[in-house]
Amino acid sequence: MNRIEYALENVHEEGERALITARENIYYLSGFMPTATAFLILQDEPALLVSEMDRESALAKSSVDVRTFRRLSDVGESLDLKGVLVEPATPVGILERLGIGGDFRVMDPVSDLRMVKDREELKKMEEALRIAEDSFRSLELVGSEIEIAARLDYSMRVAGSEGVSFDTIVASSVRSSIPHAVPAAETTGSPVLIDWGAVREGYHSDTTRTIVEGEREHEVLEMVLEAKRAGVRALKPGARACDVDSAVRGVIEEYGYGENFIHSTGHGVGLDVHEKPSLAAGDETILRRGMVLTVEPGIYIPGEFGVRVEDMVVVGGGVMNRLPDVLD
Amino acid sequence: MNRIEYALENVHEEGERALITARENIYYLSGFMPTATAFLILQDEPALLVSEMDRESALAKSSVDVRTFRRLSDVGESLDLKGVLVEPATPVGILERLGIGGDFRVMDPVSDLRMVKDREELKKMEEALRIAEDSFRSLELVGSEIEIAARLDYSMRVAGSEGVSFDTIVASSVRSSIPHAVPAAETTGSPVLIDWGAVREGYHSDTTRTIVEGEREHEVLEMVLEAKRAGVRALKPGARACDVDSAVRGVIEEYGYGENFIHSTGHGVGLDVHEKPSLAAGDETILRRGMVLTVEPGIYIPGEFGVRVEDMVVVGGGVMNRLPDVLD
Repeated sequence: MNRIEYALENVHEEGERALITARENIYYLSGFMPTATAFLILQDEPALLVSEMDRESALAKSSVDVRTFRRLSDVGESLDLKGVLVEPATPVGILERLGIGGDFRVMDPVSDLRMVKDREELKKMEEALRIAEDSFRSLELVGSEIEIAARLDYSMRVAGSEGVSFDTIVASSVRSSIPHAVPAAETTGSPVLIDWGAVREGYHSDTTRTIVEGEREHEVLEMVLEAKRAGVRALKPGARACDVDSAVRGVIEEYGYGENFIHSTGHGVGLDVHEKPSLAAGDETILRRGMVLTVEPGIYIPGEFGVRVEDMVVVGGGVMNRLPDVLD
Repeated sequence: MNRIEYALENVHEEGERALITARENIYYLSGFMPTATAFLILQDEPALLVSEMDRESALAKSSVDVRTFRRLSDVGESLDLKGVLVEPATPVGILERLGIGGDFRVMDPVSDLRMVKDREELKKMEEALRIAEDSFRSLELVGSEIEIAARLDYSMRVAGSEGVSFDTIVASSVRSSIPHAVPAAETTGSPVLIDWGAVREGYHSDTTRTIVEGEREHEVLEMVLEAKRAGVRALKPGARACDVDSAVRGVIEEYGYGENFIHSTGHGVGLDVHEKPSLAAGDETILRRGMVLTVEPGIYIPGEFGVRVEDMVVVGGGVMNRLPDVLD
């Protein structure tokens, strides 16, 4: 018997199907480690549901049939989940969005408060960003992607960062076409996409630069930068989060690359590297002065390369970054 | 109004009390960042519930009244949680242990399978451990705790570790008395406690060494080592996880330091750095050949110093470490 069959035997002691959400468990059973929310429906005909972003890697690695979903609510509607078996680690908010309730009500009384940053919080985020940028400036792009990432992390750490904001991404040549790529042991080719951040007193920074070579890569970078500028302009007090997403997406769609921009436009940053609001189609949050958001359009051409540029922007206060958009 | 009052206003739109479990939210409201499961009960008289391990730091930093708990079920019994407001990020297993149910059943069909490692998995863990130990051997204990931790992380990374198993702990002098200490910007004094791990293909290593000076520290280290050896001996196929905990705890209690051993004896290691089973009072899991567990007794003397030594042990296969117990 293989691992799936053993696990299914366990499931059948209690019910028909289980919803596997812990990424290590999905990896253990399918061979694919998700980088975003994913579900393995453990039933007689198991299925792995992943976001569009994980599609390419999941198809390459998973031993289980892969499907994609755009919204969590679609998953709930397409399956009969009443009385489903769920893992202890599953966040209750995921259950709610799948339409599964209980002797509790889901509410998030704190995250909304955290969206608008006060002076002290902005200062800590500025500090984190300065550390991240200074470390980037002194970084030599030699050696493997892993070595470059390790040097950047080391440099941020000794400069006062509390660890890293998230696993630093250094993805070059064809690997840059995967938004959440893991640094490889290979030396870098062009382009080189670096997504990195530092942490000060719990507050994160999050920026991305892509260093390009050659005409085609430069062209794509220019489109991404135009989209980013449109996003920064749209990010004003009173605007809705989803409108900023439309503004950015509109530019990329006009260039005919709409299908290649496979993630949301940005997200709040603060005590979490990803927090509310989300610059995405569904989020109608009204932007207020003092919110800090990333604007991070990207164009990913499967099998070729990807370009992403990400800035941090204070609503009503402008771009926080000091690094130029285009680097040699 | 302060943050607690604003959050409470949000809560009162929906109900009487909310259970705050997200650590960043607990930090945002109370000023204290938990290192283990903790709850902030957001109600007219808010309370912060933390584990014994976090007690010292919570008392120092929290603006909210601090209580401690030993088991999650005690928290559920002491509070009326029916219909409580819960955060989306709260794991459903926590709700279940607090006695809150729903239109689902909690089950963990995969984690039990993961306890026993096959040959391939053991090989990856051996690789992770070799990287961790080689990096430790070449580490110079100069500079600040942060610098030492950063060098160790860098060295594991370029040697092939996929990031670190967990935030590396380098805690010296009085800071070693806190089990989950965060490395400080200060240069090290004695003792120096280092808890670190590498990752290979998703599999973790996890070891701790404490470098001591002077008679008292050496004495405490000897007690800890005697406890550890008792644990390794007890870790046999057929034994119960809780019995290993008793064996280790018994040694420390005999020396009169039972109150200073404030965490469980160990835990499974694999795709997660902490996985089943737990070498703790409540866990009656029968140990089987091929399980990999840490044995990590510690004695923490508040305001003075702490000593912990942690090995990785394969049930039926012995200690995986090659580093000596006592280091200069």
